[in-house]
Amino acid sequence: MKSDDWTTLSCPLPSQEHAAAAENRQNSLTKPPGSLGILERLAVRLAALQETERPKVDDARIILFAGDHGITLHGVSAYPSAVTVQMLHNFATGGAAISVLARELRAPLEVVDVGTLATTEIPGVVRDKQCAGTRDFSTEPAMTIEEAQFAMAAGRRAVQRAAVGADLLILGEMGIGNTTSAAAVASALLSKSPDDLVGRGTGLDNKGVEHKARMINAALKLHGLGGTEKSPLETLACVGGLEIAALTGAIISSAQSRVPVLIDGFIVSVAALLAVRINPSCKEWLVYSHRSYEQGHQQVLEALDAEPLLDLKLRLGEGSGAALALPIVKLVCALHAGMATFDEANVSGRG
Amino acid sequence: MKSDDWTTLSCPLPSQEHAAAAENRQNSLTKPPGSLGILERLAVRLAALQETERPKVDDARIILFAGDHGITLHGVSAYPSAVTVQMLHNFATGGAAISVLARELRAPLEVVDVGTLATTEIPGVVRDKQCAGTRDFSTEPAMTIEEAQFAMAAGRRAVQRAAVGADLLILGEMGIGNTTSAAAVASALLSKSPDDLVGRGTGLDNKGVEHKARMINAALKLHGLGGTEKSPLETLACVGGLEIAALTGAIISSAQSRVPVLIDGFIVSVAALLAVRINPSCKEWLVYSHRSYEQGHQQVLEALDAEPLLDLKLRLGEGSGAALALPIVKLVCALHAGMATFDEANVSGRG
Repeated sequence: MKSDDWTTLSCPLPSQEHAAAAENRQNSLTKPPGSLGILERLAVRLAALQETERPKVDDARIILFAGDHGITLHGVSAYPSAVTVQMLHNFATGGAAISVLARELRAPLEVVDVGTLATTEIPGVVRDKQCAGTRDFSTEPAMTIEEAQFAMAAGRRAVQRAAVGADLLILGEMGIGNTTSAAAVASALLSKSPDDLVGRGTGLDNKGVEHKARMINAALKLHGLGGTEKSPLETLACVGGLEIAALTGAIISSAQSRVPVLIDGFIVSVAALLAVRINPSCKEWLVYSHRSYEQGHQQVLEALDAEPLLDLKLRLGEGSGAALALPIVKLVCALHAGMATFDEANVSGRG
Repeated sequence: MKSDDWTTLSCPLPSQEHAAAAENRQNSLTKPPGSLGILERLAVRLAALQETERPKVDDARIILFAGDHGITLHGVSAYPSAVTVQMLHNFATGGAAISVLARELRAPLEVVDVGTLATTEIPGVVRDKQCAGTRDFSTEPAMTIEEAQFAMAAGRRAVQRAAVGADLLILGEMGIGNTTSAAAVASALLSKSPDDLVGRGTGLDNKGVEHKARMINAALKLHGLGGTEKSPLETLACVGGLEIAALTGAIISSAQSRVPVLIDGFIVSVAALLAVRINPSCKEWLVYSHRSYEQGHQQVLEALDAEPLLDLKLRLGEGSGAALALPIVKLVCALHAGMATFDEANVSGRG
């Protein structure tokens, strides 16, 4: 690790003082203590991160990273690679799920091509890439270390451009084939069988899922992954994706910049796992929006000690699950700040 | 049952034609089919209820019913009865959880006293009651049939005043002791042991929960409930609550008026069970917002074939869980109406 490596610079610690103040406030509000369930812990966590007794999420931003995957040569997705670039146009013209959600939520959406096969500029899409797609990781590393680092830095650049000063950041992704890359990365980092981490992605049948697991298994052997010899960065470079690298860099950078990240589904959670392995101090800055239908997600969430807000069997990606959870995060802040205390409302405590 | 009984008048049937059109649309939107999980079924259900391919929830209303419970004489709640009326003031002055949520969601909130111990008018609270609290159901029926019917009609009056023409209705409740009444009603209707249906309510310890179950068990025996001899209305009158009766009437009336109801937690779900037993045709109009922490809720949800949106370990009542789920319902409609189709966006289908 070079001493000028930004990825390992410490993230700020949450304020225990503000956590305590927020917890006191939660317990004084006119409701039975604990009756807001997991939302009470969320209010306290946000207070600690924002260093205030009453956190707010008025200014959330969304950044979506897109990249293509060489492994799609081997039929690991129900959709052709061309869909990644087609969807870039759809994001930019407002027809994709995340575009609709961003509009409804009044959250600015920035779409960044960090490595798709697109060869031309796409209006409304930021282009920040060195590679047009990863290499086929069944025969060679998906990226060089330098390419992975460039994509991580693209993630950081996006955060610095689009999220510094925000209350909360939502990250999304698009990349046909990326559940395969993400499952490969997760298998390696968690030293688990790909059988436990692969899922249907955009809609594979059982045979497709088995094929996907076999491809990953072979790749882990080829690259010597799954043990302790390879670093998280090397794992990312061998079997990851350019958008996964960008997400990882963005998560670390956002935490370093004091902006909590509302983590989406499987792909973004795998990037969170990479980020936490590279820089453990970013862990406190991550809030988990949902448990997805992709079967490997649960294992990744457990490894991250995550307590997701939603469980809607989503498997769309794009940051859509995080966007769907955003109103709840906002309402948690409104309840925490706006409810009366027992004293203020002259309501009796426990009998 | 009298022939002029409004409670059993049929509710409209959902439109299969519009359900089919909405399902076609869902499958044509630029996402893998099924990738929005349980939200896709919700969009289709709302389409069928609203008789349109593209449903909307722009105008949601909230009605909260409050009542007191004679059974609280026996220490079944962690809070004193006085809290019910104190909370009426808190609702009216904007300090309660549901008040904050209504404000944030821009949803009109009407609070109706259908049977609290309040002896005076409370500004901002509609008074529509015959009784100041129920009787102690450990020694006599909580209500007469006529009192229960009056409270059910108060529910209907509230719907006709505050919800006709709305896109969606949220119902909430307040009533110290009402998890005991609700558990008693559910035990009787489901022919299950109270041990399976009682929970901690506002915060009982294990001993308190056991005591609560014993009280309910004895009451079911006293009133001859749990078998098939007593009607749902008789069950409601014997061990229910005035706010539970009002909720039941409101649910039936809302469904009859073509306004879907977003069902909150344990208490409102028990009222939904009563409503469905009294008038099965209202079942299609019920959408379930969350699975609460109150242990009996899961059994009631199963009996209603419910697929709740959230699972946040809430146990606050007031309609707060439904209000927290409302933004997701709105976003489901926005996604369904606003996303581009594969054709419109020139995105390729499955490979």
